[in-house]
Amino acid sequence: MPPGSPSERARVRRKPQRGAYERATIDAILDEALFCHLATVVNGAPRVVPMVHARVGDVLYVHGSNASRSLKAALAGEACVAVTLLDGLVLARSAFNHSMNYRSVVVYGRLREVTDPGESAAAQRALVDHVVPGRAAQVRPADPAELRQTAILALDLSEASAKVRTGPPVDDEADLSLEVWAGVLPLRLEAGEPEPDPRLPAHIPVPDNLRDYRRPTKG
Amino acid sequence: MPPGSPSERARVRRKPQRGAYERATIDAILDEALFCHLATVVNGAPRVVPMVHARVGDVLYVHGSNASRSLKAALAGEACVAVTLLDGLVLARSAFNHSMNYRSVVVYGRLREVTDPGESAAAQRALVDHVVPGRAAQVRPADPAELRQTAILALDLSEASAKVRTGPPVDDEADLSLEVWAGVLPLRLEAGEPEPDPRLPAHIPVPDNLRDYRRPTKG
Repeated sequence: MPPGSPSERARVRRKPQRGAYERATIDAILDEALFCHLATVVNGAPRVVPMVHARVGDVLYVHGSNASRSLKAALAGEACVAVTLLDGLVLARSAFNHSMNYRSVVVYGRLREVTDPGESAAAQRALVDHVVPGRAAQVRPADPAELRQTAILALDLSEASAKVRTGPPVDDEADLSLEVWAGVLPLRLEAGEPEPDPRLPAHIPVPDNLRDYRRPTKG
Repeated sequence: MPPGSPSERARVRRKPQRGAYERATIDAILDEALFCHLATVVNGAPRVVPMVHARVGDVLYVHGSNASRSLKAALAGEACVAVTLLDGLVLARSAFNHSMNYRSVVVYGRLREVTDPGESAAAQRALVDHVVPGRAAQVRPADPAELRQTAILALDLSEASAKVRTGPPVDDEADLSLEVWAGVLPLRLEAGEPEPDPRLPAHIPVPDNLRDYRRPTKG
């Protein structure tokens, strides 16, 4: 499929003007979001669970325990991953025109179990660095037993689409004269003060990558 | 099924000590979260999309356009809804013991299309008030044509479970002597300053329910 040409199921049909298929847009959303929702089919019925993910180039990795039934189910068939960033509440003058500003990505495909030890270790580092950039180099890396306990699944980003809404409410012309406050209430994920582990020695400082923590944003 | 006794698929198996089945816990998570992820099966493959939801008693409502293929697919079979609140990053001394503090709910069941006009109108009010409590009474209500354009689906909460992680990292004893900062970085969704619609007359003030906006929290 040529770049920017979505598959039939990845194409945004509801509100198609909100659809985006450029990898730069898709990647920025995947990289900013801290977690995703992975949907699989188990005994013919859908199952969806939150998971941490990390993108490395054209591949999205998720991880879980080797004993997880959701991961096992995901390997047996098709999977779908959704990532959603909520940017604001869109408050219109009518109930009907209420909306939200958001950036979301949906990825379709078949998960591949990562069996190469080098790829698995790299993915596990990427998952730590996805959450806190630079963290993987600061902590004790996974030992061979820990690497084996962790199942890493890879999903190719070839079948992905983004959907983005921005801007103020879109009210009906007839509603513009109503005495109703309308606009956007922006929302963002904010970090509080780091809370040291009760067993942390007092002389170990908060590292720079946890001070003023913010998710990476595009541009 | 007796209260507090989860169905086989709703039972938390990975980290079962994090499972919770009391409706008070489940309801508080559903009520705080601004949106959910709805998973369905389309042509044998999973599909997951973000949606706004609202709980009214024992029923979770979601809404979308009457033309939505995701909603149509959801009506044809089983559905699964996940709601996830991220409370913090759990930063351990080892890569392996990194985690997140979160509160999540998964609901299984078959969606029912709401056809009763009274129930549909009540659900549409609940969806507005779920996002901003008190907002439904402040805006122009949906007219009959708008009510008909909106599909409302109901999911019974009888098959639901919550999963909750709180507290500091759990490190291996052997790692406690490492010179690595460990602890929790708390995260929360924060509202910024309300941004008036460009066409809003200057004399209309920001309503009280949008000042110091916070999601409801349990207790």
